[in-house]
Amino acid sequence: MKHNSYFEGRVQSLALSERDGPATVGAIEPGDYSFSTSSEERMTIVAGSMRVRLPGEGWREYAAGETFVVPPKASFDIEARTDVAYVCRYR
Amino acid sequence: MKHNSYFEGRVQSLALSERDGPATVGAIEPGDYSFSTSSEERMTIVAGSMRVRLPGEGWREYAAGETFVVPPKASFDIEARTDVAYVCRYR
Repeated sequence: MKHNSYFEGRVQSLALSERDGPATVGAIEPGDYSFSTSSEERMTIVAGSMRVRLPGEGWREYAAGETFVVPPKASFDIEARTDVAYVCRYR
Repeated sequence: MKHNSYFEGRVQSLALSERDGPATVGAIEPGDYSFSTSSEERMTIVAGSMRVRLPGEGWREYAAGETFVVPPKASFDIEARTDVAYVCRYR
């Protein structure tokens, strides 16, 4: 199983396969982060909450159970004030 | 952030804090596993599905969105036929 670590270990993820394609499950420590996508990413929060700024949009809060979609080849920003856990699906 | 690896890396988890206490988010590769608890564990499947045998019970399938509770100081068994992602809350 592939384990990835970003931002000096403050964001970490574990890779898995789903029937529909690859996914990761991960955790985010409090902080401000910018990410870039290659494929489309469908992120579902499973613990905690965070503010997210998608390309061309304003900041919006996402809590456990909510999903946002980031287009391919795009950047997005995150403000986490608590620990967050997520599942990310790549399609 | 603490990263733990079990069963030669086939089960891995990342630790986080929630308002109510500690939690982990993790992934499980296909296989058969036995786990032991110290505190109560409340496991929610967030991707995939697996069969679970709780103490004194028969095997039962749990799919994404479902939760089972394992008492403290107990053992439980898992049969994963696909990759599984979970959130585990310790109380």
